Amino acid sequence: MPRLGTQRRRTQHEPQTTSSTSDLGDLKTYYYTQTLDHFNYRPDSYTTFKQRYVINYRFWGGANASAPIFAYLGAEESLDDDLPIIGFLSDNAPRFQALQVYIEHRYYGKSVPFGSMNEALKNASTRGYFNSAQAIADYAAVLLHVKKKLSAQNSPIIVVGVLAAWFRLKYPHVVLGAVASSAPILYFDTIAPRHGYYSIVTKDFKEASKSCYKTIRKSWAEIDRLTSKPHGLSTLSKRFNTCNQLNESADLKDLLESIYTEAAQYNEPPTYPVSVICSAIDGASVGTDTLG
Amino acid sequence: MPRLGTQRRRTQHEPQTTSSTSDLGDLKTYYYTQTLDHFNYRPDSYTTFKQRYVINYRFWGGANASAPIFAYLGAEESLDDDLPIIGFLSDNAPRFQALQVYIEHRYYGKSVPFGSMNEALKNASTRGYFNSAQAIADYAAVLLHVKKKLSAQNSPIIVVGVLAAWFRLKYPHVVLGAVASSAPILYFDTIAPRHGYYSIVTKDFKEASKSCYKTIRKSWAEIDRLTSKPHGLSTLSKRFNTCNQLNESADLKDLLESIYTEAAQYNEPPTYPVSVICSAIDGASVGTDTLG
Repeated sequence: MPRLGTQRRRTQHEPQTTSSTSDLGDLKTYYYTQTLDHFNYRPDSYTTFKQRYVINYRFWGGANASAPIFAYLGAEESLDDDLPIIGFLSDNAPRFQALQVYIEHRYYGKSVPFGSMNEALKNASTRGYFNSAQAIADYAAVLLHVKKKLSAQNSPIIVVGVLAAWFRLKYPHVVLGAVASSAPILYFDTIAPRHGYYSIVTKDFKEASKSCYKTIRKSWAEIDRLTSKPHGLSTLSKRFNTCNQLNESADLKDLLESIYTEAAQYNEPPTYPVSVICSAIDGASVGTDTLG
Repeated sequence: MPRLGTQRRRTQHEPQTTSSTSDLGDLKTYYYTQTLDHFNYRPDSYTTFKQRYVINYRFWGGANASAPIFAYLGAEESLDDDLPIIGFLSDNAPRFQALQVYIEHRYYGKSVPFGSMNEALKNASTRGYFNSAQAIADYAAVLLHVKKKLSAQNSPIIVVGVLAAWFRLKYPHVVLGAVASSAPILYFDTIAPRHGYYSIVTKDFKEASKSCYKTIRKSWAEIDRLTSKPHGLSTLSKRFNTCNQLNESADLKDLLESIYTEAAQYNEPPTYPVSVICSAIDGASVGTDTLG
């Protein structure tokens, strides 16, 4: 599944300490009958699928008070993965007496058209409906539906998430405001530098530790050097304790790259994974070679 | 072809006297390779068709002066029909040193996908791409193309036409402003009164002449009464001098309705067709019956 940047690995999560976790018991799950294609009158465009959304009513001041609606526009993952870590809504809902609405992005989690992920990704035609323009049209439909269901026509909606800025631009009549924190809304060819994402990852490591950065930089050539030797890949497999035998150097490089990029992308408190990685690399005993 | 309201009949036009006609010689015609579906990654969405647009460079102050671009977003008819009557651009271009761009709406004139109008309207799937969301996406693509071609990145664009308001909402980064004169942008179920269009037509005739309004009102029942008589339709055919024999009363009613609605929709100087019709109706000699 296409992602901007790398996906945070769930297994490595620290136990959550934000208020969002404690609210999970208040969440109610719904399914909206969503239209497959919002911009087309072809008969197959009217195909529908079930889109999951979750509401936390706990702090809402209600429709009569025109209390606001905070809506999280699901990112490129299952809502099951989003819910435990999206603190913005639950952190701010009490103060604003806001309704919290979390909407799953189409083609993720339980919001998959064509009955199953296998069918949905089967070919270019079924995958063709998997795009951001359709996704934000989904969100508009769900939000208008929620407002109607709750008779909350006067409750202003604030959207949050990577698609929030685009949503606000395209559906200004649906939402009053948008918070697109850390959203790469201008990360496109001809606007951003071509290797902008990786430049920042490199910069993060360089700032954390110059020697760590240098070791990592040298390691790529070292992996290639070892790979070209007899039994080189076996040596690397043993050295990195891989579950399966490496087939090519790219297997190892891709793994390392994902570790570095994930660390930089989610270099947050309290763990600061970039520092953790660099401490390990820099802390190797004297005489250890580039690959540890 | 779906239209909002009635289509002005070209054959009844008075000779044009506005400046737009005199500029027709300055118009240059281009064709843009347009994408069939802007919101979908299905392989067939990448099908292209030629979209016609016309530019009048005569008054343009040029890219270096950041002189503005006035763009007419084609309505539901061929650009050949639009060009002689759209005075707004040519009337205002000299004062603002504006470039005039006229873009034909998809599925009209020479901007028809699938090779021919027959193919384009063949079935629900080919017709499915015929909608306003796709049309305004077309305009965005053409306008960005024109700006690029003329190196006119700093020239602000003002759009004009029935789709202008929607265009400004959905593509705020492409145009600085929109003039949607007389555009029924809120003419939808649940917003406008159900028979709003026809109420206004009725009001127009009532204001022009109360007796004219009454005669027209009576005429529908009179047509039904005559139709139910032996040889009634033949009598009506002769009375209204129809080219072909009427098959049902609706044939005549539809014709009359289109005459009345067109007159009201285009009740402009210098002809004021509503007054012309009412003068004829009211001016019938004494003793003439309802159907003249």
